[in-house]
Amino acid sequence: MDEVKVIEIKKSIFAENEKDAEDLRKELKDRGVYLLNLMSSPGSGKTTTLIRTINLLKDKLRIAVMEADIDSDVDAVKIKEATGIESIQLHTGGMCHLDAEMTRQGLDGLRLQDYDLVVLENVGNLVCPAEFDTGSCRNAMILSVPEGDDKPLKYPLMFSVCDVVVINKTDVLPYFDFDMEKCRENIRMRNPRAQVIPICARTGEGVEAFADWLLAEVRSWKQ
Amino acid sequence: MDEVKVIEIKKSIFAENEKDAEDLRKELKDRGVYLLNLMSSPGSGKTTTLIRTINLLKDKLRIAVMEADIDSDVDAVKIKEATGIESIQLHTGGMCHLDAEMTRQGLDGLRLQDYDLVVLENVGNLVCPAEFDTGSCRNAMILSVPEGDDKPLKYPLMFSVCDVVVINKTDVLPYFDFDMEKCRENIRMRNPRAQVIPICARTGEGVEAFADWLLAEVRSWKQ
Repeated sequence: MDEVKVIEIKKSIFAENEKDAEDLRKELKDRGVYLLNLMSSPGSGKTTTLIRTINLLKDKLRIAVMEADIDSDVDAVKIKEATGIESIQLHTGGMCHLDAEMTRQGLDGLRLQDYDLVVLENVGNLVCPAEFDTGSCRNAMILSVPEGDDKPLKYPLMFSVCDVVVINKTDVLPYFDFDMEKCRENIRMRNPRAQVIPICARTGEGVEAFADWLLAEVRSWKQ
Repeated sequence: MDEVKVIEIKKSIFAENEKDAEDLRKELKDRGVYLLNLMSSPGSGKTTTLIRTINLLKDKLRIAVMEADIDSDVDAVKIKEATGIESIQLHTGGMCHLDAEMTRQGLDGLRLQDYDLVVLENVGNLVCPAEFDTGSCRNAMILSVPEGDDKPLKYPLMFSVCDVVVINKTDVLPYFDFDMEKCRENIRMRNPRAQVIPICARTGEGVEAFADWLLAEVRSWKQ
């Protein structure tokens, strides 16, 4: 099994997260590095989606991944094994989210000049991560079919702060009461600008649309 | 559609949650009311499981439910419509968990002397709710098959604080890479005493085992 770097993230001492996030974003812009903050519930398929997406993009972009989890390094190892790219594990020590300073601690574990795109896989949680600007260029989230089409009603902030909502596990649509049109409507209610991209990370169906969006984003950020 | 009571929960002003939780538990014991704190990720099937369980127990116990969500009252309405029991909605106003004082605000919305069992459906979140003792008699959690068998590795505290882990959505086991034995092993590693009860809330399979456990718990609490 591949070994991955594990970073124990310390609690942020900065009170002004918004300013800190703006500073980090500006720094990333200056260095030509695009940071994507990827959020979701536990088990919605962030890691599998990332593996598919990275394998579509790794010949076009230099990519690294930071996997944030309270414990374990299974995801960072999985990404490294399945894609060959640099993947590091951030341990939050029980904390339920990352803010900009904590994200910076992770970025310090990478040679930033080597990458065009860094993906932060945030802690699996639909509540707290939405409250903290990580300094990323964009927020994306994954909602999986088994979670239900009513999630935008219950977790309004998460859907409000995301530019893209990936709807994963479309292969199991026949086995769940999930109404795609209703889900789109619920998302629109929270965030009319959000792009909705249905995919099946297991089979790869639809992942190209997400990869295309991300590629266009990175290219426009680096201009 | 049924109307349900909605309570806007205020942020707790007590610093000593542990003492407050102990006090609440003692008070519930004196009054012969059993409080179950039910936790899970968003969309793991807490509400459907509750409806099945309540319909099995409502002739034997007087039951009320408190549905905690950041927004909406869809779950409280669903419970009331499907079971006929008292169901109230707690709005946490963005907060990701309930502590003992916040739970007490919910209980104040019920005529406690009318109930043997009150179920608190906590905010869908595998991280923060595990950190706060709500004053409940027991913690139970639901892990659903689509979330994956590795969740005990990633969310250790949640599995440590729960006396029962219900594994829901067993009907979709054929469509997911979920190893029940491995999951049991991962749970045991975090909490050797935890009972594991596989169910399918949609079909009702296995729910009786959970209802039996709960009935025995309430009866022993009231002695």
